[in-house]
Amino acid sequence: MIAKLVKNPNAAKVDELLARLSEMGVKGQLIQGGAAMVIAIIGDTTKVDQDFLHAQDIIEDVTRIQEPYKLACRKIHPTDTVVTVGGTAKIGGDNFAMSAGPCSVESREQLCTIAESVKASGATVLRGGAFKPRTSPYAFQGMRDAGIDLLVEAKRQTGLPIVTEIMDISQLPLFDEVDMIQVGARNMQNFELLKELGRLRRPILLKRGLCATLDELLMSAEYIMAGGNTQVVLCERGIRTFETATRNTLDLSCVPVLKQRTHLPVIIDPSHATGKSAYVAPLALAAAAIGADGLIIEVHNNPACAVCDGPQSLTPAAFDPLAGQIRAILPSAYRY
Amino acid sequence: MIAKLVKNPNAAKVDELLARLSEMGVKGQLIQGGAAMVIAIIGDTTKVDQDFLHAQDIIEDVTRIQEPYKLACRKIHPTDTVVTVGGTAKIGGDNFAMSAGPCSVESREQLCTIAESVKASGATVLRGGAFKPRTSPYAFQGMRDAGIDLLVEAKRQTGLPIVTEIMDISQLPLFDEVDMIQVGARNMQNFELLKELGRLRRPILLKRGLCATLDELLMSAEYIMAGGNTQVVLCERGIRTFETATRNTLDLSCVPVLKQRTHLPVIIDPSHATGKSAYVAPLALAAAAIGADGLIIEVHNNPACAVCDGPQSLTPAAFDPLAGQIRAILPSAYRY
Amino acid sequence: MIAKLVKNPNAAKVDELLARLSEMGVKGQLIQGGAAMVIAIIGDTTKVDQDFLHAQDIIEDVTRIQEPYKLACRKIHPTDTVVTVGGTAKIGGDNFAMSAGPCSVESREQLCTIAESVKASGATVLRGGAFKPRTSPYAFQGMRDAGIDLLVEAKRQTGLPIVTEIMDISQLPLFDEVDMIQVGARNMQNFELLKELGRLRRPILLKRGLCATLDELLMSAEYIMAGGNTQVVLCERGIRTFETATRNTLDLSCVPVLKQRTHLPVIIDPSHATGKSAYVAPLALAAAAIGADGLIIEVHNNPACAVCDGPQSLTPAAFDPLAGQIRAILPSAYRY
Amino acid sequence: MIAKLVKNPNAAKVDELLARLSEMGVKGQLIQGGAAMVIAIIGDTTKVDQDFLHAQDIIEDVTRIQEPYKLACRKIHPTDTVVTVGGTAKIGGDNFAMSAGPCSVESREQLCTIAESVKASGATVLRGGAFKPRTSPYAFQGMRDAGIDLLVEAKRQTGLPIVTEIMDISQLPLFDEVDMIQVGARNMQNFELLKELGRLRRPILLKRGLCATLDELLMSAEYIMAGGNTQVVLCERGIRTFETATRNTLDLSCVPVLKQRTHLPVIIDPSHATGKSAYVAPLALAAAAIGADGLIIEVHNNPACAVCDGPQSLTPAAFDPLAGQIRAILPSAYRY
Repeated sequence: MIAKLVKNPNAAKVDELLARLSEMGVKGQLIQGGAAMVIAIIGDTTKVDQDFLHAQDIIEDVTRIQEPYKLACRKIHPTDTVVTVGGTAKIGGDNFAMSAGPCSVESREQLCTIAESVKASGATVLRGGAFKPRTSPYAFQGMRDAGIDLLVEAKRQTGLPIVTEIMDISQLPLFDEVDMIQVGARNMQNFELLKELGRLRRPILLKRGLCATLDELLMSAEYIMAGGNTQVVLCERGIRTFETATRNTLDLSCVPVLKQRTHLPVIIDPSHATGKSAYVAPLALAAAAIGADGLIIEVHNNPACAVCDGPQSLTPAAFDPLAGQIRAILPSAYRY
Repeated sequence: MIAKLVKNPNAAKVDELLARLSEMGVKGQLIQGGAAMVIAIIGDTTKVDQDFLHAQDIIEDVTRIQEPYKLACRKIHPTDTVVTVGGTAKIGGDNFAMSAGPCSVESREQLCTIAESVKASGATVLRGGAFKPRTSPYAFQGMRDAGIDLLVEAKRQTGLPIVTEIMDISQLPLFDEVDMIQVGARNMQNFELLKELGRLRRPILLKRGLCATLDELLMSAEYIMAGGNTQVVLCERGIRTFETATRNTLDLSCVPVLKQRTHLPVIIDPSHATGKSAYVAPLALAAAAIGADGLIIEVHNNPACAVCDGPQSLTPAAFDPLAGQIRAILPSAYRY
Repeated sequence: MIAKLVKNPNAAKVDELLARLSEMGVKGQLIQGGAAMVIAIIGDTTKVDQDFLHAQDIIEDVTRIQEPYKLACRKIHPTDTVVTVGGTAKIGGDNFAMSAGPCSVESREQLCTIAESVKASGATVLRGGAFKPRTSPYAFQGMRDAGIDLLVEAKRQTGLPIVTEIMDISQLPLFDEVDMIQVGARNMQNFELLKELGRLRRPILLKRGLCATLDELLMSAEYIMAGGNTQVVLCERGIRTFETATRNTLDLSCVPVLKQRTHLPVIIDPSHATGKSAYVAPLALAAAAIGADGLIIEVHNNPACAVCDGPQSLTPAAFDPLAGQIRAILPSAYRY
Repeated sequence: MIAKLVKNPNAAKVDELLARLSEMGVKGQLIQGGAAMVIAIIGDTTKVDQDFLHAQDIIEDVTRIQEPYKLACRKIHPTDTVVTVGGTAKIGGDNFAMSAGPCSVESREQLCTIAESVKASGATVLRGGAFKPRTSPYAFQGMRDAGIDLLVEAKRQTGLPIVTEIMDISQLPLFDEVDMIQVGARNMQNFELLKELGRLRRPILLKRGLCATLDELLMSAEYIMAGGNTQVVLCERGIRTFETATRNTLDLSCVPVLKQRTHLPVIIDPSHATGKSAYVAPLALAAAAIGADGLIIEVHNNPACAVCDGPQSLTPAAFDPLAGQIRAILPSAYRY
């Protein structure tokens, strides 16, 4: 950690700060630069609160050198984490996972039709929303409990493990048979929920918030991991920018960046990122080419009648050839 | 609502869509423009899901003309809402409210010292964090239950009503004596929490999310109001941009925009927006000049030792003259 | 074009506006919606200034339905434009172009070594900067005239056509032997320069501005095309967001969006977008998979000693296998 | 400057780098932290190119401690710069300047009417656009040369100094009688133009780019100052964010930030920032309260018929009381 001092800092305050750092178990080393004086703080600086330094009036600026996350950090844990969902679908390392399914669970028939179809096309995980975060209180809020029941039924019928979103701690008892629990973009920093999920020993699919940096995403993963649950899958689903042609801007460069910083698997959601089905296939292919560990794609048997997010859903007839193209683009060791 | 059709749309599908709109209780009127054909949808379009339209392959684009919120909409409810906090502090209409206090509650002594001091300077509401949303799981998470107890004690001692943040529905029973419940920026779209708060009949301070548009903020207010709780105070606390000189970018233009769109009061939090105490006073004055209904400012008796957000806290000695300057700048009818 | 009227608009002013529209050669059709009244403006609305409508006090909001660009619009010109650079390199349609070379031209030896090497790896265009836009006035500003001379020499030696950036109209006489003239991101809306380039009949490589929308990029292309120069190649090089892990955020979804909106070719610059060589290869592969018409990649024989942008440059040894991988990922008809 | 080394860096390369730094006239001091090793670079680091360091494979990250600008830096030049426009209007220090006038010069009558009117209301500088940067090539591009002539005429008639925008170096000969030359947001990083303006000895009004950081704005000012022209006035006119309620987001916090970092005056343009006349007055008052050194406001005698930017123009009747309110809010020493 590097703390830049103000011009002509009070010498007594500098000494006091150095003594204070020493008490914290780290060492402050004073360095006189050309135009500025800095204190290099040496030792395990995760114990040092950046805010504490910023609040000292002799300090102008603070730069963290060490990563603020440990359990998620590749430098400390160099081996790729492989997450296994429901005993069958592996994500990470050399394993590519394909999740597919409707945005919302609407009915037994709808869900089972889609589940059978995406399984036949090669999907390894079934997705489907039971609790739906909607911008408007007047919009369909999901089938809720009944939706979870239908997902569990579809899982029994097809053998596909299931992933679905939790929106509040109080819903957790309903998720006993859910193989991977999704934390949506809007809850990426719902820290109470993250801590609760850290107590589980089940895979968590953690979506990046709409305006979260990659380091913040890793800190949210760290919240879950700090509780002992190390099965975290990261998911990029588009960030908010000034561009309006797509709903959000898919930040595919997150894949090489995250691969460098963490050992956790990274998957891509092109459906929510773009909001338009015509853009899903090209972005899915790009995600496969860039080295993502998986995809999560919305598929609906009748997008024009979907209760939610129809515009971004592929038909089974469009998903099937896409799944083949994706397999063809993956490095051979990696094909699922 | 205006739906733009694709070039050469299938005529049968257009007829089908018009029939479908009719079933929904709205009327679709076909208009042939110069290069494009549009359908103008007439009637109460809050019932029409934009997604449903987007998912039709004959539709290229959809524009909503009517506001998607009703209870929060000034066109429908032209009179300013005045929210009363704890029987004494009014916000909105001609009433300006000054909230002040520490970022985190740290101890009885700290809180009471600050509370007495800000009261003497003219604050009308005491703020203080008991549950703290922190990016790192290793950072101080707040005094939690014990912090709420101290706030209630400070309220009894000073007579100032209190505002503090809730982070999860399960904490609600602890908030019985809290006069105004704050929803933090990260929970602005925690819809389950919003619905729960809609069942209360107590003021809610709703902070704008870091990348939320003003219409999304109003939709979150609508979630609370749809439950019957109309005492919502909106708060701007900075949005995320590419600029790094301040923690976030305070969007002061939100005040005239929101005043036009809604009857709800709007207050400004310059402390979180900038993250640096040196910038708090100028932005607080600007907020008063632009017509905000109140301010929420962090004050700490010893910022250099604060457990959290010390860098953005004013000392009581700095807050006192600022409070005076703010009063001087307010329109006279409005001075608190 | 749809103009939404304010609540209870002055009837005389509405009539006046309808008459005024009629004079402009378009027709205004009044539609009474549920809660709002709109005027649908029918005819060739490219003549109608959106600002003019916004400035009328009876109008609350205006939505353009028709695209504001014509020459660049795929609806009007459905066939892919194929741009030929220097008689040999084709971009667009089924043609993929690979541009490569150093960020800055530094010396005859440096440039020729790199040029021969990238040619051997399959590059079809040589890039190199002679005029360099640098944030700091104290940084190396490029070899300027002498740099252009060296590029022309390298072109003669290798047969590769050249692309290099122009920064001001006054430099144009120096560009006589430059096969494709680049307009950098910072000049995307240097309208006087665009108009001047519109008078040429040579390919222009137009880079997207750091905070330009895709429609603004197309409007800048329209500026060039309006002058009669239709050989415009669009280039995405990253947009500015709040993320700091990469220099900018590469918006790969621009490829399917632009392909839908325009017939002009679209190429990707992963070097400037990320600013880090480690991320160039994965993003280049993603760009090939998503259907871009080409790539522009920085290659330097000794990145550690480059005068500019060394951190994002690949060595020839890294570029060569990448070029092979890119060819393998391209649709077969498209392989260059 | 602090360079963070990769894990287990090659020792020979570290020695080589230290030697190289020594040749550059700075000293590299190796510091072993807890988990990372850094090199503190001491001396005049403006000579050290950050890119050079980033390009070394033993370096993971680089942090600049010293400001990259010198002439614009308040630490080096603590006294406020006061810019005098046309011999009469002072900006900076205790001097507040009020610029007002039409977006575009349209005719002699229009300009003179507005000029007389804003002068009567207390404006100290007349603004007006002759060369207009327009997104569309089909939009009105300004009266150009003839517009400059009319501005000069209005200056003679009213005695008000004039400010108008330059769009290209080739237009410079037309600007001989222009008192302050404006560089628009889109040209903030038109470095060739900035260098040319650095050769003049006349005030330059430098607008912040739509996605420029404040440090980039200061670097552009440094370009002008490096040529010897120290009369630079900075202008904030809104940055681009995801919010759509206003055209751009006015970043008023720039005022205290810039006041801390530079001695140059800072003025605010609320008209372009919001794009809507209803928001201009509140933001102008906020700008006065926050300590800006001036305002630039669009005034048009008939906004509904303005050829450009009518929606954001105030009428003279609206500007007059606003000017009074602004004067009332300014610190007394500062009232103009």
